Parts: sequence; C-alpha cells; structure tokens
Amino acid sequence: MAGSDTQIETGNLVIPRIAPTSDVALSEALDQAINSKTKPLGSLGILEALVRQIGLIQNDLYPELQAPEILVFAADHGIVAENISAYPQSVTWQMVENFLAQGAAINVFSRQNHCALRIIDAGVNHAFGQHPSLLDRKIGFGTRNFAIEPAMTTAVCAAAMTHGMELAAALEGNVVGFGEMGIGNTTSAAAIMHKMTAIPVADCVGAGTGLSSEGVLHKQAVIEASIARHAGSTMPIDLLATFGGFEIAMMVGAMLQAAALRKILLIDGFIVTSALLVAARLQPAILDYCVYSHCSNEAGHRQMLAYLHARPLLQLDLRLGEGTGCALALPLLHAAVNFMRDMATFDSAQVSKQEQ
Amino acid sequence: MAGSDTQIETGNLVIPRIAPTSDVALSEALDQAINSKTKPLGSLGILEALVRQIGLIQNDLYPELQAPEILVFAADHGIVAENISAYPQSVTWQMVENFLAQGAAINVFSRQNHCALRIIDAGVNHAFGQHPSLLDRKIGFGTRNFAIEPAMTTAVCAAAMTHGMELAAALEGNVVGFGEMGIGNTTSAAAIMHKMTAIPVADCVGAGTGLSSEGVLHKQAVIEASIARHAGSTMPIDLLATFGGFEIAMMVGAMLQAAALRKILLIDGFIVTSALLVAARLQPAILDYCVYSHCSNEAGHRQMLAYLHARPLLQLDLRLGEGTGCALALPLLHAAVNFMRDMATFDSAQVSKQEQ
Repeated sequence: MAGSDTQIETGNLVIPRIAPTSDVALSEALDQAINSKTKPLGSLGILEALVRQIGLIQNDLYPELQAPEILVFAADHGIVAENISAYPQSVTWQMVENFLAQGAAINVFSRQNHCALRIIDAGVNHAFGQHPSLLDRKIGFGTRNFAIEPAMTTAVCAAAMTHGMELAAALEGNVVGFGEMGIGNTTSAAAIMHKMTAIPVADCVGAGTGLSSEGVLHKQAVIEASIARHAGSTMPIDLLATFGGFEIAMMVGAMLQAAALRKILLIDGFIVTSALLVAARLQPAILDYCVYSHCSNEAGHRQMLAYLHARPLLQLDLRLGEGTGCALALPLLHAAVNFMRDMATFDSAQVSKQEQ
Repeated sequence: MAGSDTQIETGNLVIPRIAPTSDVALSEALDQAINSKTKPLGSLGILEALVRQIGLIQNDLYPELQAPEILVFAADHGIVAENISAYPQSVTWQMVENFLAQGAAINVFSRQNHCALRIIDAGVNHAFGQHPSLLDRKIGFGTRNFAIEPAMTTAVCAAAMTHGMELAAALEGNVVGFGEMGIGNTTSAAAIMHKMTAIPVADCVGAGTGLSSEGVLHKQAVIEASIARHAGSTMPIDLLATFGGFEIAMMVGAMLQAAALRKILLIDGFIVTSALLVAARLQPAILDYCVYSHCSNEAGHRQMLAYLHARPLLQLDLRLGEGTGCALALPLLHAAVNFMRDMATFDSAQVSKQEQ
C-alpha cells in the first residue's frame, strides 16, 4: 500500500504517506480517451479535468465511483463564550438530532443523490445516548475557549486525528465527502486559515451563520487577540490543537488516511477547507486527491480556494456547511466518469472529425 | 388558461400570451416557508431563489417537478458554405444518429439524471427514415445561405415556430429543457444576438466547435457582411427568418408555448439563449419562466446572460450544446424543490433560532 513505507511521527501520531498521482503515461492515455469522444475538443470543460483527475487517483483509464459517503463531523467550541455566533451553542446538538431524524438539508440532498451519510459525534456538548446512525467518537463536551487557553492539548488533537484516520480506513467506498456541524467553528476555521496562509485576519473572517457587520468586527477582534496570545505555536498540529475543534482535527486525520488509500476527497466549504489546509501542510500530495465541490459565500472561502489553486465545481452562494456542497456536486462527479465510460467515440459512431 | 386571451398575430402565426409570475402574497409566503427551514437565513443561496421562482411559476408553495424532458432540435445551415465551422455539415446528421444510438453526451447525462430525451429533426440535410425516437418535423434539408439571401422566408419561419408550439403543447411534464445540434448554428446565433442586443458583432462571435483565431475573424467578417446585406430587417420574426435556423425558429415557438402553459424552461447555452432573445422580444414575460442551466464557454454567452440579467446555475466551461447544460443542472432543480418539501422547520425539529 502507498500509505505504509514513509511516515511522519508526531508524538504517538503516525501520519500516513500520500503518493502524488502523477503518472505521465496514464495522463496522456486519459487525454486521448477524452478526446476520442463524440464532442468538440475540450467542450466538456471542467468535467474533462475531473475525470482525468479521478482516473489518476484510481489508476484507471475508465474510473468509477463506488459507494460515495459523506461524513458529517460535529463538535462544540469553547470560543462561543466570546459571543462570536448568531446562534446559541445548543443548536449543535439540536442539529445533530435533526440529522438523525432526516430533517436537515444534508439529509435531503444526500438522499436525492444516493449518497450514504454518517454522522459522527466528535465532541458535542450533549449526551446523545445510543442511536444506530450516530457514531460516538466523542473527545469531550466541547473544546476550551482559545481566547484564553489552547482549544485542546496536542495529545488530545492527535487522538482526534487518530479517530479520523480509523474512520477513513473503514470506509467501503472510494469517494468520501466531508461535512461538519459546530456552532462557533467558522471562528476556529478563520484563525487556522490565517495561520496556514498568512492572509490577513480581516480577509479570513466572515458572517458565519449570520452575524451583523458589528458582530463580524467583534469576531475579528477575538481572533486577533487569540492569535497574539498564542504567538508561539508554529507547527501545524500545534496550531490545529490551539485554534481547532474536535471535528476539524478528526477531519484532518480522516482526510490524510482517505488520500493515503487513494480515495476521492470531496471538499465542502470554509470549515472543511480549513482542515484541508492543515492536512496539506502535513502532506502536500493530499491535494491531488481533492475535488472542490463548491465556493461558499462565507467570506474567506474564495481566498482559501485561490490559495490552493482550486477550481470549485459549484458556485451557488451556499453557506450552510453540513457537507451540502459535496452532496450537491456529486452528480457532476458521476457525469464525469459516465461520459468517459458511456459516450461513443468518433470511430465507433462513425462521426466525421474536425477538419482543421 | 393564461395563453388564450391576448394574442399577437404575425401573418398566420398566433403568439400565445404569457402571464408574468408576479404574485406578491405567494412570493412572501414562499420566503416565509424558505426561512422556516433549519438553516441559517439565505444559506442555500441560489437554490432559494430557484424554488421561489418555481413556486411562482407553478402557483404552489411546495412546487414539484414532473416528467422533465429535454427536446433536442437539429437542423442544417446554408451558411456553412462560407466555411465558418471547424466540422463538416455531415456531422449534424451523424450526431443525430449518435443521439438515436444513445452514444452522445446528452444521452449519458439525461440517462444519469432521469430526464426524458426527444430528438427532433427540424431540418437536417439527410433522410433518416423511420426511427421510433426521432420526431420528424423537417422544414427542409437545411436553410439557405444568409450571406447571400435570407435563411428562410417569414412564412417558413412561422411554420417552424408553429411546429415548436405544437410540440410544447403536447409535453406531459412541467419542466422542458432545450438543446440543439446544427453545424454552423453558432454563426446564426451570433448574428441574432447582435440584432437583438446591439452588442458589437466582435463580442457575439466565438470559436463554436473549435475555430482557430483566424477562423473566428473570418466568421465575424461573414456575419458583418451578412448584417450589412440584410440591413432592412427590424421585426423579430423577420430577423429570425433572415439569420436563424429551422431548429432555432422551432425552439422559439416551443419556448413561447411552454411558458404560456406555465412550464419551467431550462435554458442551455449560446444557441438556445439566442432563441430565447427572440422569444423574449415577442413576449418579455417569458423570462419569468426561464432557469439558466449554465454559462457556456462560447464567447458571447456570458454577455447574453448579462443582457438578460440571468444568473446561471453552473459554470463548468461547457461548450457542447445538445442540451447538456440542462441535463447537468437538473439535479439542482430537484434539490431546490426537495429542500422546500422535505426539510424540517425550526419548530418541527425544535431547533433554536437566531439570537439577533
């Protein structure tokens, strides 16, 4: 397996090695197969780039999607004590209950597009009891308030990442979408974005679930003060522990393991992409495995994507999280692999080729 | 019915009246229903605008999509004699055969997204014989060369439009996508775009199926000379007859009738939108019924959409035609009506509301 020969150790944490997907011969063969289809050269635009990428990930000229699944990681955040969200913290567990009752947007869109959905309690401030659709990976009842102290210790962060790796290792399919729920987590994500990209904090902060412009300025001040307080942290995992959340850390681990296993990583919005920024700092080759489902309306997301040189599939002004962008983009992934498998070629359909 | 009380007559042609969808009370009720769902206000972005529009079209707080169908209109163009396409004219009939054999991109994407597909011979330069999946509405074996003479007479144009109206009147579903196939038809569409919008010809002309930059300049010169030759035409139907194609004229008729019957019109790319420009000149209220599936990479399409104040659902750099944008966008229409029907409300799910 690609994941086993080289490893980065951080305390007890072993980061799997991720192989780049660069295979020049396969890439050329994919281009030839794409161009043989009955359509003007390049006329399927981003879908052509998408099937080329998926082919390289799967090492297959005619790749296919198997058992796509979206993992929704939920957790609470101590930073809510600083009054940085438009909604009370209780909405985190209430929305988890809504997921379990099939009533949220992610339920509707996953069901529509035939995508499995798994909800993970990474650390919600609530005792859910047993539920067949809820995976209990609770690290705690919410992080600490990073305006005062690190959100978690590095050891706890490593534990969350390890849970994520184990979840990814157990996936049956070859496409995994990432989603999240956690009141306060755009504040974490904005701090992480700033530390990973050096983009000014003001450009990393947005309205989240719906702050007023005064609320956004307050949120920015909270983040700036927190960053000043924790100026000593520089290593990615230290930064993740300091400013992150249990759901963000668990996603980082799951992303790393999923890419090591050569799965397609379907990236959602602002918070999910903040996790990816950390994962990519640890293992840059992870980016070869990422498909960016959409560009969110949360202010910083467009710049995150630009930083990653990422072209999103959808631009629908979404800012809901939960993995909704992943579920909505999934039909475009199917379209990419389907045209490659099912379209006729100029030769097979006896269609004349371009004259020039 | 909304279509019968006021009519525009053009010779023997009766243009159905289209009622605007403005119902203030329903619009407010739709907003309330959207905002009651368990999500931050406005966080489903364009999907919220979409279900609001569909609700107004269907006069229903909880609209639904029934039996979506894509109509692909195919025809040939005399203007190909001016060497304005990268592909030979025979590709039109060869691609129709490819559609009938299920080998084209539109077949793959329609099948994937559970959309019926109907191919219409509006005037291809080929005798197809009987085929159960091909509707014979052949107006002729291709238009005349509009560099020399009008592409068709106004009477022939009216006949093509009437066929389109009859096709739309016979539709079973409430969503109709428009697609086309016709070597040379971006040249027609660019001329129509210029005449309808007064945007300079240079900004209306693009590479079509893949012209070189010299080819694009030649195409532009052909269009400019043709426009100078036919400077007398000013009425929309005269312009459609002069510069149009059988497939474009048939689409204009089908669009008008479909909107009069309060169906959702799913608009594809450059050529389909050129037909809509003509239809909207005849009946401006048709725009209330239009959903713009995507922004094409054909140069003029972005400006067409801006002229119509249209926000497309997808931006995938497609430039394939056939209705492929419609088929790919259909899951987003389903998502819009599904979230409205199936998501829980803050009350039903007992989720706390925004604090501010």
